[in-house]
Amino acid sequence: MEGFEQFAAIQIEVFYWWCIAIMLQIHAGFLTLEVGISRVKNVLATALKNIMTLAVVLPAFYFVGWWIYNAFPDGLIPRMSEAALAALPWSENMGPNITDHASGVFWGAFALFAATTASILSGVLIERVRLSGFLILATILGSVIWNLAASWGWHGEGWFLTQFGYHDVAAAGVIHAIAGFFALGVVVNLGPRIGKYTGDGKIVNILPHNLPSTLLGLMLIYVGFFGFLGGCIIAVTNGEWMTIYGTPTNLSAFVFNALMGLAGGLIGAYLGSKGEPFWVASGGLAGVISVGSGLDLYHPALAFIIAVIGGLMCPFIGNFLERKGIDDPVGAITVHGFIGIWSVLAVGIFASGYPNINGPEISFIGQLVCAAVVILLGFLPGYWTSLLLKKLNMLRIPKQAEMLGIDLTEIPATAFPEGIPSTQENGRLKMIMSKSKTS
Amino acid sequence: MEGFEQFAAIQIEVFYWWCIAIMLQIHAGFLTLEVGISRVKNVLATALKNIMTLAVVLPAFYFVGWWIYNAFPDGLIPRMSEAALAALPWSENMGPNITDHASGVFWGAFALFAATTASILSGVLIERVRLSGFLILATILGSVIWNLAASWGWHGEGWFLTQFGYHDVAAAGVIHAIAGFFALGVVVNLGPRIGKYTGDGKIVNILPHNLPSTLLGLMLIYVGFFGFLGGCIIAVTNGEWMTIYGTPTNLSAFVFNALMGLAGGLIGAYLGSKGEPFWVASGGLAGVISVGSGLDLYHPALAFIIAVIGGLMCPFIGNFLERKGIDDPVGAITVHGFIGIWSVLAVGIFASGYPNINGPEISFIGQLVCAAVVILLGFLPGYWTSLLLKKLNMLRIPKQAEMLGIDLTEIPATAFPEGIPSTQENGRLKMIMSKSKTS
Amino acid sequence: MEGFEQFAAIQIEVFYWWCIAIMLQIHAGFLTLEVGISRVKNVLATALKNIMTLAVVLPAFYFVGWWIYNAFPDGLIPRMSEAALAALPWSENMGPNITDHASGVFWGAFALFAATTASILSGVLIERVRLSGFLILATILGSVIWNLAASWGWHGEGWFLTQFGYHDVAAAGVIHAIAGFFALGVVVNLGPRIGKYTGDGKIVNILPHNLPSTLLGLMLIYVGFFGFLGGCIIAVTNGEWMTIYGTPTNLSAFVFNALMGLAGGLIGAYLGSKGEPFWVASGGLAGVISVGSGLDLYHPALAFIIAVIGGLMCPFIGNFLERKGIDDPVGAITVHGFIGIWSVLAVGIFASGYPNINGPEISFIGQLVCAAVVILLGFLPGYWTSLLLKKLNMLRIPKQAEMLGIDLTEIPATAFPEGIPSTQENGRLKMIMSKSKTS
Repeated sequence: MEGFEQFAAIQIEVFYWWCIAIMLQIHAGFLTLEVGISRVKNVLATALKNIMTLAVVLPAFYFVGWWIYNAFPDGLIPRMSEAALAALPWSENMGPNITDHASGVFWGAFALFAATTASILSGVLIERVRLSGFLILATILGSVIWNLAASWGWHGEGWFLTQFGYHDVAAAGVIHAIAGFFALGVVVNLGPRIGKYTGDGKIVNILPHNLPSTLLGLMLIYVGFFGFLGGCIIAVTNGEWMTIYGTPTNLSAFVFNALMGLAGGLIGAYLGSKGEPFWVASGGLAGVISVGSGLDLYHPALAFIIAVIGGLMCPFIGNFLERKGIDDPVGAITVHGFIGIWSVLAVGIFASGYPNINGPEISFIGQLVCAAVVILLGFLPGYWTSLLLKKLNMLRIPKQAEMLGIDLTEIPATAFPEGIPSTQENGRLKMIMSKSKTS
Repeated sequence: MEGFEQFAAIQIEVFYWWCIAIMLQIHAGFLTLEVGISRVKNVLATALKNIMTLAVVLPAFYFVGWWIYNAFPDGLIPRMSEAALAALPWSENMGPNITDHASGVFWGAFALFAATTASILSGVLIERVRLSGFLILATILGSVIWNLAASWGWHGEGWFLTQFGYHDVAAAGVIHAIAGFFALGVVVNLGPRIGKYTGDGKIVNILPHNLPSTLLGLMLIYVGFFGFLGGCIIAVTNGEWMTIYGTPTNLSAFVFNALMGLAGGLIGAYLGSKGEPFWVASGGLAGVISVGSGLDLYHPALAFIIAVIGGLMCPFIGNFLERKGIDDPVGAITVHGFIGIWSVLAVGIFASGYPNINGPEISFIGQLVCAAVVILLGFLPGYWTSLLLKKLNMLRIPKQAEMLGIDLTEIPATAFPEGIPSTQENGRLKMIMSKSKTS
Repeated sequence: MEGFEQFAAIQIEVFYWWCIAIMLQIHAGFLTLEVGISRVKNVLATALKNIMTLAVVLPAFYFVGWWIYNAFPDGLIPRMSEAALAALPWSENMGPNITDHASGVFWGAFALFAATTASILSGVLIERVRLSGFLILATILGSVIWNLAASWGWHGEGWFLTQFGYHDVAAAGVIHAIAGFFALGVVVNLGPRIGKYTGDGKIVNILPHNLPSTLLGLMLIYVGFFGFLGGCIIAVTNGEWMTIYGTPTNLSAFVFNALMGLAGGLIGAYLGSKGEPFWVASGGLAGVISVGSGLDLYHPALAFIIAVIGGLMCPFIGNFLERKGIDDPVGAITVHGFIGIWSVLAVGIFASGYPNINGPEISFIGQLVCAAVVILLGFLPGYWTSLLLKKLNMLRIPKQAEMLGIDLTEIPATAFPEGIPSTQENGRLKMIMSKSKTS
C-alpha cells in the first residue's frame, strides 16, 4: 500500500494548495473593503498598506514565525523538538524536498493566516498611520504574537489544551481575537482620525467614500474564508480528517456550520443595525467567526442562533467603542476581536463537557481563562509596541499630511485623476452626527 | 480496501467543498453586476438585497428546501424514503457526523444552487422592489419552487426522467429557466421602473451607472460557474463520475463544452448586439447555459455552435421583452429563462435517442414537455405570490421613494458621499430612445 | 489495483478543473487592471477587448493550438506522433469520452494559458488599437506563437530541453516572455497614444483613471496565479508529481517559492519605484515570474532575493522603454517580457549543473540561447503581423476617434452616465512631466 499512502499525501497537498490560493482572495477583499472605507484623499495609502502587508509578513513568517509556532506550545520557553527544528529556515523541510509533501503547503497555509492577522489590524489604522510604523506592527503581530497564541491554543500539545481543554477549531480566538485586541492596543496610542470627534466630544460620522466597493470586498472575503476554514482542518494519510487538537471531524460539519453561521450573522447584524449595509455585510463575517471555535461541534440550528447573537451584538459593540473614543473605521476590533471572544466563550457555554484527547474536557472556565490570556496577549504587545513607535515619532503621519490626505503627501500617484473630487477640494466633509437616517 | 473507500469519500468531500467556495463567488459577481446596473440613487438597496439573499435562502434551504428536493421525485406527493428522512433537520445526517462525509457538502452545494436561483431573480426586480417582498419571493423560489423542479428533473428517480427521459445535466432548465420564469411572473405584477416607458409607450434606456462594474461582475460569475458546474457532477466512491441521472461522464467533458460554450456565447452575443458590452459579457453566461443541459454529450464544435445561437438570440429576446413592457434591467429573464429553455430543447434536437439508465431515451418531445412544465412551475408561483404581495402592498416601494431613490429613503447610509452626484440631484436622466449609437 | 488507478485519474482531473477555474480569475483581474489604467473615455473599449479575448482564443486553441503544441517539439517540422494525432479536433480524445479523464482538463488548462498570453498582449495596446486588429493578433499569439514556444521549451521532448537542457518550469519564458516580446513587436508598429509625447519628445504621464481598480485587478491576478502555477505541474497516476520535463517536484516546493517570490517582488518594486502603487503591485507579479523558471529548484531565501532583483528592475526597465518611445500603459512588456527573460537566465545562474532526464544539464549558455530564441519567436511575428495589419489599416483606430475616446465612437454604450466626467469633456488632461511627486 505504499502507492496508496503516497497518493494520500498528494491529496492533502492539493487541498492546502487551494486553501492558500483562496485565502489570498481574503487580501483582495480587504484591499477592496478598506479602499471603499477610506476617504478619497487616502485611498492609495490604504491600498498600498494592504499590498505591502504581504511583502513583509510572508518572509517574516518564513524566517521566524513558523519556528515560533512550532517551538512554544509550552508557554514562553521554546522546545527544541523535531517539529521546531524542522521549522528553522535552514532545515531541509523548509524548501523544495521531493520526499516532503507536507511542509511547504502547511507553511503556506499558516503564512496566509499570518497575513490575515496583519490585514485585520490594517483596516483599523487607516487614514492616519505611517506605512513604516504599520509594517513594523504587522510584522510583530504576524510573525511573533499570533504565532505564540496559536502555539498555545491551536496546537495538539499547546498548554491551553493540555491544561484547560481549550477548543477553538477555526481559530476565532487565536487569529481573530488576537488581531482585534492587538489592534485595540495600537489604536489607544494612535488615536482617532482628525475630525472624528468634535471639540465638545460629539461623534462625527466619517463616511466611506465608496460603500459598494466595501460590500464587494466583504463578499470576496466570504469566498476567501473557505480557504481559511479549510486550512483549519487536518487531513491525515489514513483517510480521515481531524481537528488541530486530534479529534475527529470532517468538512461536512464545517460546511453546515459555516453557511448557517454566515446567514445567522447577516440576519443578526441586519436586526441590530436596522439595515445599515456596512454592518449587515460585516455581520456575515461575524457570524462565521461566532461559530468558528465550535465549528465541528454545533448542530446547524444552534450555530445559526449563536451567529444571530454575534451579528446582533456587532453594531452595539461598534457604537460603544466609538463612544469611548476608539476610532475603528472598518469595525475590525468588533468583528474580529470581540466576536472572536464570543466564539471562544460560546464553546464553553454550548459544548461544555465535550471530551478532548490531549487535555481535560471542554469547560466554560477553561474557555474563559484562555480568552483572557488571548486578550492580554493581543492587547499588551499592541499597546507597548505602538507606544514605543509613538515615542519614536514613527506611528502617526503629521497632522498637516492627514488634513491634506496621505495620498497627496506620501504617495507618488493619484487615485482618480479624472473625477471624484477629494474631500479636501470640495469641502464636502459634513458634520453628520452619528445617527442613522432611520433612527 | 476499507482505507481506500474512506479515502475516496474524502476526495469527494474536498471536491464539493471547493464547489461551494467558488459558487459563493457567483454572489460576489451578482452584487457587482447589479450594483453597476443600478442608478446611483439605488446602489445600496441593490447590494443589500444581494447580501440578504444569502441570509434568508441558506437557512430556509436547511430547514425545508433539502427535504423537498429529496421527497418529491414522484410529483406533488412526498415520499418518506430514506433519503427524504435523512434530509429533515433533526436527522443525524444534517449536522456534524463523523461517519457521514457526504451530507454536509452535498447540502452545501445545493444550498448555493438555491441561493443562485434567488440571485437570478434578484437582478430583475432592482430599483423598485421592496426588500421584504423580495426576500419572501427569494425564499419561496429558493426553498420550494426550484427544489420541486430539481426533484422532478434533476434526480435519479424524478418523474421527468422516468417518464420522459429528461436530460438536463447542468440544470439549465431546473435552475436557470425556473428562476427566469419565476422572475417573469413577478415582474408582470411588479411593473417597469418609473420612467422606463414614456407616456406614449416609447422605451427609455435607463443606463447602468457603472458598466465596468457590471462587466467585472460577469467575469467573477464566469469563475463561479465552475463551482456551479462542478456541483452538477456526482463523484462516486468506486472511482468514477456520473451525471445526476446515473449515466457515466467526467470533468474533461465538462471542461471542453463549458469553455467552448463560453466562447460561443460571447461571439453570438457580439454579433447579435453589434458589440454592446453588456450583452457581450452576458452572452458568455448564455453560452455556458445554452450547452448546460447536454454538457456531457456534445462534441465541443457542436457545443460552440449551440452557444453561438444562444448568445445571438439574447439581445433579440431582451429587446422583444422590453417592447412588451417587461423591464428586466439585468437581462436575466432572457439569459437564464429563455436560454435555459433553449438549452433543454437543444438536447432534444441534437442528442435525441441517447439512452438513459432509469427512463426512456432522450427525445425532443420529452424535452419539450418537461420544458413546458418548467416554464409553468416557474411562472405561476412567481405570478401568484407576487400578486398576493402586491395586494398586501408589500411588493413595490412607494412612488415617491422610487423617484428620490431607494437609498435616500430606505437605507441608513450613503454610497458615494464624496462624488458621483445622483441622478436625481443633477437631472441627468435623459430620455434616450432605446436605440444604440451605432444603429 | 485497477480501482486505485481509476481513482488517481479522477484526482488529477479535479486538480486541473480547479486550475482552470482559478485561471479564469486572471481574466477578471486583467479586465479590472486595464479598465483602471484606461482613461474614462476608453474604459468600455478596453473591457470589451478583454472579454472578446476569451471568445476568440479558446476556439482557436481548440481547433489549431493544441495540435501545434503537441506536434512541434522538434522545431518547425510537425510530428505525426500519437499525441499530435490525439490533439486534432476530430480525435476521439477531443470531446466527451468516458475512458479519457485527462485530455479535456489538460486541454482546458492550456487553453487558459493561451488566453493568458493574449491578455498579456491586451493591456499594452489599450486606448488606440482596433478591436478587430487586436483579436487577430491575440489569435495568432494564443493559438500559434506561444504554442510553438511551449512545444520547444515546455514539453518533455522539446528541442530546447533535448539540445540545451532548458529549464522553465512555470513558463516564465514560454508564456510570459513570449507574450511580452510579441507585444513589443506590435507596439513598435502601433506607436504611442496621442499625447504620450510632446512635440519636442518630452514624456507625458497619462494617468490611470482609477488606480484602486488596477490594484484590485492585480490582487485578483495573484489569486489566479495559483491556478496558473498549478497548471504547470504534472500529477501522475503513480502518486507523484513531476515537472513538464519529467523531473520530480511537488506543490510544497511551488508554495514556498511562489509566496517568497511574491513578497520579494513587492519589496523590490517598492524600493525601485519609491512606493508607486502601480509598480509595487505589479512587482508582486514580477516576483512570482522572476522565480517561475526555477520554482522547483530554489531555496526560498534565494527565491526571495531573485524576486527582489526582479521587482527592483521593473520601474527602471519601464522608464527606459518609455524614454525609447515604447508606450506600454500596463507595464506588461517589462513585467512579463523582460522579467520573464530574467527568470530564464536566473536558472542558468543559480541552478547551472542541475541534471535533466531527457537532455543535457542546466547551463547558463543553454538558458541564454533559448532566451534569445524566445525573444525572437515573440518579437518577429508580433512585428510582422502588426506591420501587415498597419498596411491594411486594421491596426489603429482613426486619430479623431482616439482623441474623442474609443467608447464614444465605437462602443454602443456609456461607462459612467451619471458621473466621472470624461477627460475630453473637462479638459483635465494635464501635461505632467514623467516625474513622480516625491523625486
